[in-house]
Amino acid sequence: MEKLSAYLNQNKERFLEELFGLIRIPSISSISEHKPDMLRAAEYWKETILKAGADKADVIPTAGNPVVYGEKIIDPAKPTVLVYAHYDVMPVDPIDLWTSPPFEPEIRDEKICARGADDDKGQAFMHAKAFESMVATGELPCNVKFMIEGEEEIGSPNLEKFCVDHKDMLKADIILVSDTSMIGQDKPSITVGLRGLAYLEVEVTGPNRDLHSGLFGGAVANPINILSKMIASLTDEQNRITIPGFYDKVIELSPEERAEMAKAPFSLDDYKKALDIKEVHGEAGYSTIERTGIRPTLDVCGIWGGYTGEGAKTVLPSKAYAKISMRLVPNQDHEEISVLFQKHFESIAPASVKVKVTNLHGGQGYVSPTGDKAYIAASKAYEKTFGRKPIPFRSGGSIPIISTFERVLGIKSILMGFGLESDAIHSPNENYPLFNFYKGIETIPWFYKYYTENA
Amino acid sequence: MEKLSAYLNQNKERFLEELFGLIRIPSISSISEHKPDMLRAAEYWKETILKAGADKADVIPTAGNPVVYGEKIIDPAKPTVLVYAHYDVMPVDPIDLWTSPPFEPEIRDEKICARGADDDKGQAFMHAKAFESMVATGELPCNVKFMIEGEEEIGSPNLEKFCVDHKDMLKADIILVSDTSMIGQDKPSITVGLRGLAYLEVEVTGPNRDLHSGLFGGAVANPINILSKMIASLTDEQNRITIPGFYDKVIELSPEERAEMAKAPFSLDDYKKALDIKEVHGEAGYSTIERTGIRPTLDVCGIWGGYTGEGAKTVLPSKAYAKISMRLVPNQDHEEISVLFQKHFESIAPASVKVKVTNLHGGQGYVSPTGDKAYIAASKAYEKTFGRKPIPFRSGGSIPIISTFERVLGIKSILMGFGLESDAIHSPNENYPLFNFYKGIETIPWFYKYYTENA
Repeated sequence: MEKLSAYLNQNKERFLEELFGLIRIPSISSISEHKPDMLRAAEYWKETILKAGADKADVIPTAGNPVVYGEKIIDPAKPTVLVYAHYDVMPVDPIDLWTSPPFEPEIRDEKICARGADDDKGQAFMHAKAFESMVATGELPCNVKFMIEGEEEIGSPNLEKFCVDHKDMLKADIILVSDTSMIGQDKPSITVGLRGLAYLEVEVTGPNRDLHSGLFGGAVANPINILSKMIASLTDEQNRITIPGFYDKVIELSPEERAEMAKAPFSLDDYKKALDIKEVHGEAGYSTIERTGIRPTLDVCGIWGGYTGEGAKTVLPSKAYAKISMRLVPNQDHEEISVLFQKHFESIAPASVKVKVTNLHGGQGYVSPTGDKAYIAASKAYEKTFGRKPIPFRSGGSIPIISTFERVLGIKSILMGFGLESDAIHSPNENYPLFNFYKGIETIPWFYKYYTENA
Repeated sequence: MEKLSAYLNQNKERFLEELFGLIRIPSISSISEHKPDMLRAAEYWKETILKAGADKADVIPTAGNPVVYGEKIIDPAKPTVLVYAHYDVMPVDPIDLWTSPPFEPEIRDEKICARGADDDKGQAFMHAKAFESMVATGELPCNVKFMIEGEEEIGSPNLEKFCVDHKDMLKADIILVSDTSMIGQDKPSITVGLRGLAYLEVEVTGPNRDLHSGLFGGAVANPINILSKMIASLTDEQNRITIPGFYDKVIELSPEERAEMAKAPFSLDDYKKALDIKEVHGEAGYSTIERTGIRPTLDVCGIWGGYTGEGAKTVLPSKAYAKISMRLVPNQDHEEISVLFQKHFESIAPASVKVKVTNLHGGQGYVSPTGDKAYIAASKAYEKTFGRKPIPFRSGGSIPIISTFERVLGIKSILMGFGLESDAIHSPNENYPLFNFYKGIETIPWFYKYYTENA
């Protein structure tokens, strides 16, 4: 394994340059005008995998953005690791809060600063380079497959069908994913739980056109006022969600399990300081870690309506909109929750407005066992390179496709995320420390080694 | 007076063309980049007044946009009418809802379609052309002064000082204003009440940056959820405003006064049909006309925060904003109400967010007597040209400067508005029927005549 370290050291700069090439492609999956960029990013990945030493690699069309598939089969009797990642990224608004242009990567404070630096171009690229390193040094111990999709940030609408259609091709023993974060650079952790997601857009229409707020105000329903009341009523004084049936399938953890969770290192003071807030805010009766780890939530991700420009325009607008996301815990079904939301939201609308609810996307939550051989191999790999055992951790984030993999392909996933919460993924000034990038490339081959040895 | 009709008929097309010239100048006072347009519009007015026959006209600077002043003194012993109007207009968002470009006036369905077609370029221009007609035909019975300002739509921040500084110059017996509407083309009305206005912007800040809604959602205050709750709490189940002290100075009308108001022709069915709403919405215990005529209100004119683009971006935003306007009734003081709002809004913010409240503008309400000679002259003028007596009417709109005129100059105003509620002022596709434009030019000289005769 020493050859691997040497190879990494000799190629550090080139690895980074090649990652920058990928980052420079603005592959935002939710904005249709970036369609050509999606294809460019897919081709870039295909070339990257081929050059790294794959037997073959292809850009395979779907009804949406294509999936890049590649493989290197060294011995059918050996285990197979399927690397899953995505080449699409989030939008960049609000653009004026970025210190440097989001698609012109640069290094500041030893961090790669750009959209996708962490999520998921930086993290995914570690796998390409770990794979290249293993091939180049003769240290690849097993078979490898890559499946890099372009629609993760919009809920992977076409990947389930892709899995059904290519079940044989995708056969593997474990799916390896780096799209989560760890607690700290000196506190490695492995994500063993993910939240599900239901994401809907609501439109509230009052009068059929914008009105003069003096001539009509007070007599005609203002859709912003109404929408505010409707949103406000979705959570109660305890910050519990009021949608009937919402909590029916939520599994309450035992006191023992909660005590175990409470052992994860966490400083509420540091947390508040980092976010510049006086108080945290969440469901009564649960700690901050529990609120994101084991409890579902409802957040308005966007709201708009009326006059939002400079100055004081008076208007009683015709329409108001909001984008509402609900993070779900394992056992809650996102489709069921979306239906509950829609029915409830329509039922609370006063007769003075019309309401339209659109289901934009969703995915199931996931829990992975801490006792299986993939977890043990990952744990040993982190211990080797970080010098300490990783902590099992339930993340508040969602990777909806993970539960689909288990259902359709029958394969479990291991979430070896190397990101940090401070990486500002989905936000302005997304970044990824060089330390984490290189540490990932160093750690991944150890997983391959331990996993193969124990298979 | 027959010569006046003939003059109007001969010059109809030219009057319209000259109005179009004014409309084509995009004099939006609330957007600073339109500063040069404000000067162009002021110069256009100066030329218009001079050509119409004024002894003199000037563009007089203020700390903001200039005021156009002009006069024709035919006999100091005769009464003086001071015409007040404004050359500034509202912004044009949402621009994509306009059928034709807002500053390229065109005639559709016998209506002038453009921003400012009614408010207040179309209505103000009637006065220039009525004046021109009276001068040209030798029918001007009294002295005339014009004061055309460029900041009405942003609350006339510099006009009070202008009045103080030019009190002698502005000396007059009555201020004549066409900046309101009437009930219908066959139902002339005179506005005898205006609401005041307090307009504030609020900013709610949660965490110091946009966060991943999965990793932080449920544990950190979402400023949109919080803002929605705060806005929702500003009105109760009866749609009464909950700000302590808000109603303290509101004068309740007597049952007799309310019975008188109820005589104004009004069809709730037509109203709902025109706005395409199933139900009206307002303060319990009051009719639709009362809700806009004699009751104060609170409307969110704009709201924004988080991701508002295409698709499903998940984010827990750092900030959310709203623009909130309160229409006030006579006796409520806008400065007092702004302070009450600010104190209350800050007091209801939870410790998990920071709140900033900015007072953007305001003005007092106004009531004018129906028995004085200006009202009687106006009533006779409408009766002459419309064939029926106008109805006295309390409008829900605000012209904050009207009460300032009374306080500073000691002059009452008569509100001879020729607009219609369907003119969509402040909205996309603002329009002004040719019928109303020409009827105004026809009616105004009759007011001059009756007012002078009775003075």
